[in-house]
Parts: sequence; structure tokens; C-alpha cells
Amino acid sequence: MSDHEIFSPPPPAAVLEAALYADDLDLAEAFYGGVLGLEKVTRHGNRHVFFRAGRMIVLIFNPAQTRLPTGNPDLPVPPHGADGPGHLCFATSAAELTAWRDRLDAAGYPVEADFHWPNGARSIYFRDPAGNSLEMAEPRLWFDDA
Amino acid sequence: MSDHEIFSPPPPAAVLEAALYADDLDLAEAFYGGVLGLEKVTRHGNRHVFFRAGRMIVLIFNPAQTRLPTGNPDLPVPPHGADGPGHLCFATSAAELTAWRDRLDAAGYPVEADFHWPNGARSIYFRDPAGNSLEMAEPRLWFDDA
Repeated sequence: MSDHEIFSPPPPAAVLEAALYADDLDLAEAFYGGVLGLEKVTRHGNRHVFFRAGRMIVLIFNPAQTRLPTGNPDLPVPPHGADGPGHLCFATSAAELTAWRDRLDAAGYPVEADFHWPNGARSIYFRDPAGNSLEMAEPRLWFDDA
Repeated sequence: MSDHEIFSPPPPAAVLEAALYADDLDLAEAFYGGVLGLEKVTRHGNRHVFFRAGRMIVLIFNPAQTRLPTGNPDLPVPPHGADGPGHLCFATSAAELTAWRDRLDAAGYPVEADFHWPNGARSIYFRDPAGNSLEMAEPRLWFDDA
């Protein structure tokens, strides 16, 4: 009997990292760090820049670099990398959403869509400098107890 | 004086949704729901299938569909969609990681990399049916108090 028959692991109960791709990491760092105000965790040259959002890490990768083998036998991170606009959604309160709309407009990142879902939760959408579709939404969009 | 000068919103403190892309949503649903055991939140035809992981929603989109306008003036979700392997990381305990390695192997999704980071946290990497690079990692990889 192998281990997996003895201990059936529960479904993953949390996401630790979410990734987006950007060709220009300087622009990405200025946006996620400067405009959104996220805490920068680390930057590795032109390969990646990582930010913290609560208990999550938001990974911004340059796909031209992450498609290559790492070249470090101790850290054999498998290659990955996507082209085209991805998506990520931050949780924000209703009051913060309204303030973010103004702040993003003022910073030159105008809100592209702003609407309420059938259950009443509001979302705003905007683009990062790489064209990724970012959203801020009230968490009650998905969680009744939020 | 505009609102954004009165109330400067704090940086987003949580990620609500992370997205990956897959051309075949039936395979994606079988993998994320069946193999990983995530709770399915909703599926919309061949456009998307969404899962819950704790306080996060994992969105699997068919990029051929999400690149098109929604056609619903009440829900003008902006287009997005990426090609090529993306990345997402789940938080799991050390014991769960070992059990997941066995379970993924048995399910035909062999672990592609398995190593410890310089701070001692362990990660395993595997692929979803669309080729996205998935990771399970001990959260102390990023959070000293985890």
C-alpha cells in the first residue's frame, strides 16, 4: 500500500502565488509598486518582479526569460510563459473601489469597465502597462459571508 | 479637490481571483475538480470553469472565448486571453506535499520538479492538462510566520 492510499490529501485550501506576464519589468514595477502600492518582495534582473498582496504573492514574469531553463541544478524551476493579456482580480471594499477608480484615472490608467454583478457586487477593470486585464471586486462577488 | 485626494486607498490586501487558460475545459474540469478536488463554483459552456480554493477563486478560461466581447451590455467584461503555459501555486503543508506527490503520480500527472528553496521550503511542480505549470509549496516559502 503506497502513501497516497494511506493519506488522501485534502484539496488545496489556499493559493500562494498568482502569475502575470510582462515584457517590460520596469514598467511593471512602477505600476504594481508605485501605482497600486504593493510591497515589492524581490526582483531578479529582467526575469521577474514579485509583490505581496496580503497572504498572496503576485508574480510578474518576463516570458522571454521564464521559457528558458533556469540553469541552476539546485532550483530546477520548470519553464513557463504566456503571451497575450492575462487576468487577475484583487479584493477591495466598496469604499476602496470608488477611491481606486479616481486614483487610477488620475494616474493615467483609466477604468475600462465598472459595473455591478447580478448579486450586487461591484467590479472595476483596468489594464496594467503590459495590457493584462486587472479587476478590483468586492469579495461578496464570490463569498456570501464577505 | 477630488475624492482621490481625500481618501488615498490602501494597497490591495488580498487577491480574489487568479486565472489560467485552457483550450479544453472538459479536461480542465476533470483535473481541477477531479484530481485536485477543488470545489467547482460555476461553468459557463465552453468559455470558463471556476473553482474555489479557500478564499480564492481559480478561473480557468478558454482564451478563444474570452478574447471576444461578452455581448452582454450589463456585464461588459473586458476581453483577455493568453497562449502558452501560465503558472499558479497552491499553499500546502509539508505532509500534504508528500501525499500530493504520490497522488499526482498515480493519477498520471507526474511531478516534474521537487526541491527545497534556500530558506528550506519545499515545492513540487506538475502540469495541468493544458500544460500550465502548477506548483504546490509550503507557505513559509514567502511568509516567515506560516
